[in-house]
Amino acid sequence: MDRLIEKLRGGLPPEAVLTDPDVTAAYAHDHASFCPAGASAAVVLPRTVEQVQHVMRTATELRVPVVPQGGRSGLSGAANASDGCVVLSLARMDRILEIDPVERTATVEPGVVNAVLSRAVQEKGLYYPPDPSSWEMCTIGGNIGTGAGGLCCVKYGVTAEYVLGLDVVLADGRLLRTGRSTAKGVAGYDLTRLFVGSEGSLGVVVRAVLALRPHPPRQLVLAAEFPGAAAAGDAVCRIMAGGHTPALLELMDRTTLRAVNAMARMGLPESTEALLLAGFDTPDPAADLTAVAELCTAAGATEVVPAADPAESEMLLEARRLALRALEGVRSATMIDDVCVPRGKLAAMLDGTAAIAEKHDLVIGVCAHAGDGNTHPVVCFDPADEDESRRARASFDEIMALGLELGGTITGEHGVGILKKEWLARELGPVGLELQRGIKELFDPLGLLNPGKLF
Amino acid sequence: MDRLIEKLRGGLPPEAVLTDPDVTAAYAHDHASFCPAGASAAVVLPRTVEQVQHVMRTATELRVPVVPQGGRSGLSGAANASDGCVVLSLARMDRILEIDPVERTATVEPGVVNAVLSRAVQEKGLYYPPDPSSWEMCTIGGNIGTGAGGLCCVKYGVTAEYVLGLDVVLADGRLLRTGRSTAKGVAGYDLTRLFVGSEGSLGVVVRAVLALRPHPPRQLVLAAEFPGAAAAGDAVCRIMAGGHTPALLELMDRTTLRAVNAMARMGLPESTEALLLAGFDTPDPAADLTAVAELCTAAGATEVVPAADPAESEMLLEARRLALRALEGVRSATMIDDVCVPRGKLAAMLDGTAAIAEKHDLVIGVCAHAGDGNTHPVVCFDPADEDESRRARASFDEIMALGLELGGTITGEHGVGILKKEWLARELGPVGLELQRGIKELFDPLGLLNPGKLF
Ligand SMILES: Cc1cc2nc3c(=O)[nH]c(=O)nc-3n(C[C@H](O)[C@H](O)[C@H](O)COP(=O)(O)OP(=O)(O)OC[C@H]3O[C@@H](n4cnc5c(N)ncnc54)[C@H](O)[C@@H]3O)c2cc1C
Ligand SMILES: Cc1cc2nc3c(=O)[nH]c(=O)nc-3n(C[C@H](O)[C@H](O)[C@H](O)COP(=O)(O)OP(=O)(O)OC[C@H]3O[C@@H](n4cnc5c(N)ncnc54)[C@H](O)[C@@H]3O)c2cc1C
Repeated sequence: MDRLIEKLRGGLPPEAVLTDPDVTAAYAHDHASFCPAGASAAVVLPRTVEQVQHVMRTATELRVPVVPQGGRSGLSGAANASDGCVVLSLARMDRILEIDPVERTATVEPGVVNAVLSRAVQEKGLYYPPDPSSWEMCTIGGNIGTGAGGLCCVKYGVTAEYVLGLDVVLADGRLLRTGRSTAKGVAGYDLTRLFVGSEGSLGVVVRAVLALRPHPPRQLVLAAEFPGAAAAGDAVCRIMAGGHTPALLELMDRTTLRAVNAMARMGLPESTEALLLAGFDTPDPAADLTAVAELCTAAGATEVVPAADPAESEMLLEARRLALRALEGVRSATMIDDVCVPRGKLAAMLDGTAAIAEKHDLVIGVCAHAGDGNTHPVVCFDPADEDESRRARASFDEIMALGLELGGTITGEHGVGILKKEWLARELGPVGLELQRGIKELFDPLGLLNPGKLF
Repeated sequence: MDRLIEKLRGGLPPEAVLTDPDVTAAYAHDHASFCPAGASAAVVLPRTVEQVQHVMRTATELRVPVVPQGGRSGLSGAANASDGCVVLSLARMDRILEIDPVERTATVEPGVVNAVLSRAVQEKGLYYPPDPSSWEMCTIGGNIGTGAGGLCCVKYGVTAEYVLGLDVVLADGRLLRTGRSTAKGVAGYDLTRLFVGSEGSLGVVVRAVLALRPHPPRQLVLAAEFPGAAAAGDAVCRIMAGGHTPALLELMDRTTLRAVNAMARMGLPESTEALLLAGFDTPDPAADLTAVAELCTAAGATEVVPAADPAESEMLLEARRLALRALEGVRSATMIDDVCVPRGKLAAMLDGTAAIAEKHDLVIGVCAHAGDGNTHPVVCFDPADEDESRRARASFDEIMALGLELGGTITGEHGVGILKKEWLARELGPVGLELQRGIKELFDPLGLLNPGKLF
């Protein structure tokens, strides 16, 4: 037994250190395509902060890289193992430590699954907004690692808005407490938000204080069909400029609608170019739907159907949540872009993506958090087909280039990981990149935490 | 003419470089008491990004410290000049560059006054929430520097929630662009939020992209009188635990009420121990006021008066906004604490503050953003009276100690500046402090930006 494993076992129970290659292989990568993954030396599954500290101290002593992992549902390879690394899975640190209705906070361990927390707070009349479609598989630690978004972010914001304080084990094993458990606080630099979206590269989150809201009423959702991207984009602009506050404003293109129907027989319209879903959780959602229906019609919608009740609305949401998985069924693999553009450029982004698909003779389905301008072009391809794979990779890069050209960002919510490293450098520019690298060095001078990701 | 002034004049128009000591003295300090201020070598008032870059390049070349300033309304000495420094006032970079109703963003120069922006966006049906009571004097750059809050933050959050992207001139004169102009984005570490609350110590903000919201309906406000802190604190807890979303939940104690009446003849009740103001900008605010009135009564309110209309509500808000200035009239000076505690500890904080006032034989008025647990104990004293000054200083420290003991933070929104440096170290602890210092060094290796503040 080599020294690393021996040392790890010195501070962890036997069942928390996995070394069987058949077992550790299951922890090698997340949900991203085109991202290399190596063979880890071990997977560790600590249950306590002290155990995490032991892992990091050991790693520092032996100069072994560590890859933190949550639910491995990431879409950028940010949780992928590298050769000889220790995979540090936080999955077993999954306790909800406290839910406080007066402070409107939840204190949790990082391995709590998003949907588990959402249900637990809902029982107390509370609401944890960030709701990635992967909510049944992703963890709060992973959500913090990526800065996850979701469907309701157009009204309620993303993960960064809900993280008040963190306990973080640093690369050298020391414990850092950042932020606060109060509603407000500005004592010193905002290290808490520095960790949000840092993809496990600055420290290991072992405890989080999250802000909650009162649970909103159930949504009513309207579905509007559009003959093309221009009209759908125009509707989004009219809705936002009109001062409306949808709790959800999502778009699915025809390819996506067909894929969802094929997977789940949802009966979504397949003859439309773009379906827009607008949801409201206001006191009088029916009135909002009426107003938004008019705007959609004015923008050129061919059909506008308000859901009859919350149950029908929930079905539409479910269809949207299935979109990514449904598109996985089109060919054998997918590659998911995450470009976010100004709302006014949504139509240009959609049309540009269609042109890229045509140019490369590829199927690219698009679903989008349209209200935020956050598009997910999903390139469908067969990895066994070398030429198609090459074209898929090329189209993916062209889509990011288009996003930057339109004044957008290469990632609205999925992060950078391995997949978009070169693109991050382009988006940040040399000054930004230098400072970001400086921060990495400050927190992790030996470069042990998730090396090869982000930069 | 010395070298510094000559160099500065090389890249700035003559009227933008002030050196007359009588003139520069007016830029020596902000609104904080007990904070030393030195004599600057010059005050510069650039109008362009290039001019700011010229100032920073000159400062770097000659190793001269630079103190960025906005409206100098700060309450922690963070904008105070130091001997021989260059005061870099951003007051003349005061253009609103764009207001975009579709993207719901405003792009502004740093010297725009908060109230000017608020009125400009309101004309387009939009809303920039952060509303410090100093809004007619403070600037967006200063708000970003301190991470300013205000009355409406209990519902809408603080400045950090509204800063999407920044242009920053670094200590060496290079220009950094952080963040984005889209609704979402997670490309790399969140440098934007690192600048929010950094008190001019990491760079000079020269342009900001701010998020806006649709303008809410006018508020209806209820006023409730309480016989003591326990009952008022209990009411706050009941309101928040009851799932209400007030747009404002403010408290004034008897000392404050009297001071406001003395200043502005507001006719506020003077016989009550604590007046709670709860405001709602919901579609049916009258219904919210009825529900909250019941909770206040259950918590022990002796009198509950809903405002008849928005005009009466606005008068109550105006009374609250005057509180700090009114307390300045009690003795000749004030010292304003800014401790934020969990809501459940609000009553303990208020009672503890009263005990500290009694112990030191001082007048301490308290107003509070009660819904956030953010209290402003205002110590009223006469700086000419040495003993009273000493006691004022002592009570100020004891109040911060009490806040930390109750699980709070030393600053909810006013920042650290000079006033709370030692306390910042205590709150952060050695690991946090070391990392914060490391960040300062990374951005400003020569220590030229606002030295002596924060740490
Ligand atoms: C079907 C599907 C739908 C999706 N929908 C959405 C969506 O709507 N919105 C969205 O934003 N994303 C979505 N995603 C992407 C993914 O679910 C999110 O990125 C999620 O936040 C990842 O969480 P995880 O627990 O799986 O983290 P992982 O994938 O395991 O890790 C993600 C990153 O966080 C780091 N990390 C994990 N835990 C910690 C910790 N405790 N401390 C420090 N770093 C840590 C990892 O090192 C890695 O860099 C979707 C994915 C799938 C497969
Ligand atoms: C009567 C009164 C009421 C107040 N009420 C509130 C309240 O309700 N809520 C609240 O939060 N505060 C309040 N304050 C405090 C103060 O108004 C805020 O802290 C405000 O944000 C300061 O803005 P300013 O433009 O005056 O900045 P200044 O005081 O000039 O500077 C504040 C800090 O920001 C830095 N800075 C300024 N401009 C820049 C720039 N462009 N780039 C980088 N750094 C910069 C300075 O170096 C300094 O560190 C109040 C103050 C007064 C006097």
